[in-house]
Amino acid sequence: MKYNAVTEELLQELRQVVGEKYVKTDPSVLDIYKADESLAPSYWVMPEVVVLPADARETAEIVKLANRYKVPLTPRGAGTSVSCGAVPAQGGIVVLTERMNRILECSEEGMYMVVEAGVRTADIQALAKSKGLMYAGDPCSADSCLIGGNLATNAGGNKAVRYGTTRNQVYSVEVVLPNGKIATFGSTLKKCSTGFCLDQLIIGSEGTLGIITKATLKLVPLSPFHVDVLAVFTKLSDAAEAVPKIVKAGINPTSVEFMDVSFVRSACEYCKLDLPHKEDGYYDIITIEAFNEAELDEKTEKLMKICEECHATDVVEADDRVWSVRRNCLESTRTYSKVGTSEDLVVPVTKIADCIKTLMEESRKYDFRPFCLAHAGDGNIHFQILKCDMSDEDWEKQLEQFRAVAYPYVYSLGGRLSGEHGIGLKRLKYMEKYTDPVELEFMKTIKQAVDPNWIMNPGKVIEP
Amino acid sequence: MKYNAVTEELLQELRQVVGEKYVKTDPSVLDIYKADESLAPSYWVMPEVVVLPADARETAEIVKLANRYKVPLTPRGAGTSVSCGAVPAQGGIVVLTERMNRILECSEEGMYMVVEAGVRTADIQALAKSKGLMYAGDPCSADSCLIGGNLATNAGGNKAVRYGTTRNQVYSVEVVLPNGKIATFGSTLKKCSTGFCLDQLIIGSEGTLGIITKATLKLVPLSPFHVDVLAVFTKLSDAAEAVPKIVKAGINPTSVEFMDVSFVRSACEYCKLDLPHKEDGYYDIITIEAFNEAELDEKTEKLMKICEECHATDVVEADDRVWSVRRNCLESTRTYSKVGTSEDLVVPVTKIADCIKTLMEESRKYDFRPFCLAHAGDGNIHFQILKCDMSDEDWEKQLEQFRAVAYPYVYSLGGRLSGEHGIGLKRLKYMEKYTDPVELEFMKTIKQAVDPNWIMNPGKVIEP
Repeated sequence: MKYNAVTEELLQELRQVVGEKYVKTDPSVLDIYKADESLAPSYWVMPEVVVLPADARETAEIVKLANRYKVPLTPRGAGTSVSCGAVPAQGGIVVLTERMNRILECSEEGMYMVVEAGVRTADIQALAKSKGLMYAGDPCSADSCLIGGNLATNAGGNKAVRYGTTRNQVYSVEVVLPNGKIATFGSTLKKCSTGFCLDQLIIGSEGTLGIITKATLKLVPLSPFHVDVLAVFTKLSDAAEAVPKIVKAGINPTSVEFMDVSFVRSACEYCKLDLPHKEDGYYDIITIEAFNEAELDEKTEKLMKICEECHATDVVEADDRVWSVRRNCLESTRTYSKVGTSEDLVVPVTKIADCIKTLMEESRKYDFRPFCLAHAGDGNIHFQILKCDMSDEDWEKQLEQFRAVAYPYVYSLGGRLSGEHGIGLKRLKYMEKYTDPVELEFMKTIKQAVDPNWIMNPGKVIEP
Repeated sequence: MKYNAVTEELLQELRQVVGEKYVKTDPSVLDIYKADESLAPSYWVMPEVVVLPADARETAEIVKLANRYKVPLTPRGAGTSVSCGAVPAQGGIVVLTERMNRILECSEEGMYMVVEAGVRTADIQALAKSKGLMYAGDPCSADSCLIGGNLATNAGGNKAVRYGTTRNQVYSVEVVLPNGKIATFGSTLKKCSTGFCLDQLIIGSEGTLGIITKATLKLVPLSPFHVDVLAVFTKLSDAAEAVPKIVKAGINPTSVEFMDVSFVRSACEYCKLDLPHKEDGYYDIITIEAFNEAELDEKTEKLMKICEECHATDVVEADDRVWSVRRNCLESTRTYSKVGTSEDLVVPVTKIADCIKTLMEESRKYDFRPFCLAHAGDGNIHFQILKCDMSDEDWEKQLEQFRAVAYPYVYSLGGRLSGEHGIGLKRLKYMEKYTDPVELEFMKTIKQAVDPNWIMNPGKVIEP
């Protein structure tokens, strides 16, 4: 697809829409928006202009201009993507949602919250909590990411085992469509069979089918009791094999996290914390919620029994230190390398033990440094692979070799490329390679029909 | 849209695909497939031929023929639709899924079941239960309906308050697309951010975007404890106002059903059962599940307190008699009239008391006979409206007048036309009238792109 460059004439029109102040062309500003948190400089691209619309109406005008001038457009929240989802792959306009930052309504009675796309996820969680309710979307980047980005990538996170991913927390989304019209898809209803399910089509489409500007989110009653448990294992296979057993035990865990010894070591060191078996331990961290203490006790007992049967060496209540270590996993490896990649593979929970073992073994054949953690309860494995002191050439080559083994293997297990980070620019070519051709064609048919100029976030998810 | 008639040449080709035995043209057979359970003869249309493919491959060949001959095609399960979803609105070919009736796999380990589209929902429920698991989709017609129809309409039912509707019970669907290609959308994964969410687009699209031939369904651990409670009220407003209080009390009810006095009377009489206040009672029937007895007791206590605060006259454990009465509601009114219509309105749960009161009052202005029940916990109100001895002309006229008041009112509350029955043929014109034009246009853009000949179940949901 061929696009035009941003012209002075287009800039003038953009200024008329959002105001001079909110059209940024200063190179030092543009430089910020070439990247996201993917640590993959080879994918970074400079935008030609960054605009900050105040609302859906202004966003719609920008989209209409992008169509008229045939200039590509990349929506961006806080830029916390690790898949280059917010990188302007084809240049053009970056549309920042950060001015759309109002929480418009929080209904305790109706158990929902209406938020603009630029609201911080942590602020949504905090407001819900203050009302005795919970917003169950909880990506690890909740403190910095914006809800619009969570919706665009169908972010997962820490509570997905019990509550599902972002798409399960949504009643409706307001979206600026590729033709510049504004629609609301979905409704604040517990059920609906009135036409196509367009809200779910938009959620997770990474800005390729429209720009989400507002959402009505579901809130649930806050669970009165919960416990966090740390189970420590000295064998990877024991830690991984415990996971499906925990998931199907009927205790409905909120989260089941796995940390490979590589991350246990680096994060304990980074946090200067002395946790059990910090040198040779594999961790499962499990959260359980309950309606009353009796339920909590019975569930905890059941959980401890499973962990012990799987040869856990320690099963203890997890305190803040454990979460601190878990939270700082990625941060702890940044000292080793500024360049790396975060794999986001997802497999059926029953296959997670095999998958982690196989990929860890495979990764030892290369010169990069692999770290593994997993939202194990939902089968989502994060390999953090660090370049360290490899040459650029070796890094690219070996990474490709690893992926050429890992991806077909994951698909052979019924898995997919991304559990929660999205395809973005980084996985585009793999999406084309590993997706069933009929499915891929159907996606492209829809994209082509609703965005015939391919102006919406081109270079992401699929290509013409 | 203009279609061709089914020719002898097409019949020959169909026979080559599925075998002579599975191509039906006998008028007495065709006559069966002109109708469904909608009790609305004015919508019935005779098919020109009925075919019974053995699998997705044969179904795909039929779809290709329909395209080649430009003949419309209507997929049909058990024909239990009450929205004329399976009526061949434009004649042509009816595709029966009933030969695709195998349960292909039931994995206890992976907690999923792989079924063909023509498997009875009750058989899925029973097999899951025999393994200590539950399939949580539970439409009232479970004993007779087929899973393909549940998926096509996103059927709701008795457990949707806790577990969601059919779309929430699905890992993936195999679907024959309008171009005759076979795809699997979705995957047996707890989370996924790998491309567009096509499974949810297909589910609930009522056969207009493809024919579902197979599905992988989620199973959940069977709850070890549960109780059914009948709360009897002598005022409609008390019974209705209790509902949102029950839903947000943190007891996570499985179902919250409401029966208006009209149905209580007719169903008690029909079943010859002597339930409390059977002449003047409004019923809420609530099911609660729990992990242990302590939880069940505490939740039941909380529930009883809410019902008593809402002036329930009786709050008792509901036995089989109560469910028998609930189940036979519709059947009990058939003696009064063979023609009628089932409204399937859905509103936010907080609005359900207002909505039921307002619509019951409005309905008294007409000559038809209204009965009301509701899957109240998810805001889904069924008005069963019976023609009785009205003239055809008065019936059509008054029904239109009632809808012209009821539908805008429901939309003003944030509601929609259908909670679980779908749009079908019966609600097509209202869908066009009450749906936001931008949303409607987006649906049509997708439909046009994936089914340019509009051969898939034309006359349902949307029109060209």
